[in-house]
Amino acid sequence: MIHIKDLPTTPPEGIDRKAIEKETEKLQDRLAELHTRLRATESHSLLVIFQGMDAAGKDGAVKNVFKSCPHLGIRSYSWGKPTDEEFAHDFLWRIHKVAPAKGEIVIFNRSHYEDVLIQRVHGWIDEERVDLRFRAINTFEQLLEQDANTLVCKYFLNLSYDEQKEQLQERIDEREKHYKHNPNDWKEREHWDDYMRAYEDVLNRSELPWVVVPVDKRWYRNYVILKDLVARLEALNLEYPELETED
Amino acid sequence: MIHIKDLPTTPPEGIDRKAIEKETEKLQDRLAELHTRLRATESHSLLVIFQGMDAAGKDGAVKNVFKSCPHLGIRSYSWGKPTDEEFAHDFLWRIHKVAPAKGEIVIFNRSHYEDVLIQRVHGWIDEERVDLRFRAINTFEQLLEQDANTLVCKYFLNLSYDEQKEQLQERIDEREKHYKHNPNDWKEREHWDDYMRAYEDVLNRSELPWVVVPVDKRWYRNYVILKDLVARLEALNLEYPELETED
Repeated sequence: MIHIKDLPTTPPEGIDRKAIEKETEKLQDRLAELHTRLRATESHSLLVIFQGMDAAGKDGAVKNVFKSCPHLGIRSYSWGKPTDEEFAHDFLWRIHKVAPAKGEIVIFNRSHYEDVLIQRVHGWIDEERVDLRFRAINTFEQLLEQDANTLVCKYFLNLSYDEQKEQLQERIDEREKHYKHNPNDWKEREHWDDYMRAYEDVLNRSELPWVVVPVDKRWYRNYVILKDLVARLEALNLEYPELETED
Repeated sequence: MIHIKDLPTTPPEGIDRKAIEKETEKLQDRLAELHTRLRATESHSLLVIFQGMDAAGKDGAVKNVFKSCPHLGIRSYSWGKPTDEEFAHDFLWRIHKVAPAKGEIVIFNRSHYEDVLIQRVHGWIDEERVDLRFRAINTFEQLLEQDANTLVCKYFLNLSYDEQKEQLQERIDEREKHYKHNPNDWKEREHWDDYMRAYEDVLNRSELPWVVVPVDKRWYRNYVILKDLVARLEALNLEYPELETED
């Protein structure tokens, strides 16, 4: 049983920022190499999911983790309020539609987990619906992994209550961050404890595990995600295909 | 436990064809009326699945059951061999993508069940994959019903071995049926017993029930499907929305 209050939001004591940043650059390049192999072999695909509270650094994760990867066979989606068309379907419809084909990487900034997070915190769905959705999510992710060779990598960006305030305030104080400011984020912040309970449930009821990323320090966030992502891709042993000759 | 050999392929003894055909016409019109209500309320949707052996009359079912329904908000799909793009995803990807929105009817001539039928009969997938797919199908259909208000109506068109031969032979003998002839159907016929075993599993392992339709007589087929479909739509009590006025 995972308790969010036991999970770190900051890097381990005494860790060397310079060394981590150097290592991060290496990992970015290694990811780019693995991305090319993924495209070349077309045997597997990758779905990367970033979840976290407002200002947890989801955009920054997308930006920095895939920094060295070219825009080839990568699609990224930011999931917000469903459109009318999406709302006229089950909650997984819009998600499943854009699932990666073999050889592709798909990145989710927020995901189908919002349908058991914000919707639950605000009481828009009852617990029976929550159960159904968890069941559907688990089966869906299992299907992706086992029927489509999709590696599903899920990162929970674990932000502290205090750091969220800093980050939201920066959006007001810094001219270039104004575009990120949304008064509603401050309202959602009032539901912090409810969100933590809902996230705790996500971490505990997901069959495919989450990686918990301490994000109060952005430089450490990038490193933790890359470290895991690269290791998981390495484990696929993706080899460049042999030369095809006609004979 | 359902055994296919216990299920009829012909109408009950002594049933009056004329009376059935008259009733069928009434049901076709009633379905058209319910279809309009479905479009008007936009609260529910309908997914109709026809499965059966070659020459079981799936095309005919699509043609006759929906005869009185206008081409408004109805989409029909015949599922064959997956395309390259489809094959690069999990087996439900192409299916989920075209699921009906609220207010719509979607008709499947063959369906995701082929992925536990033809693929299994020919040993293209192992039993572990079969288990995964049944699990995925059950969760998927449950999701449609409970998260999207989709009525999922599944019809197994139960054809006899002898009647299949008649029907396939007609495609050779009658000029206007030549286009339906496919030499491969005769080859698949050799796997009849394997198909029956696979279908039996489909009937037994599906959580949402199938309606078994005796199809050796086409006139009886249409009636059985319509009777069930109309009853299930009636049960939704779809009322025309009130007049919306500005105030």
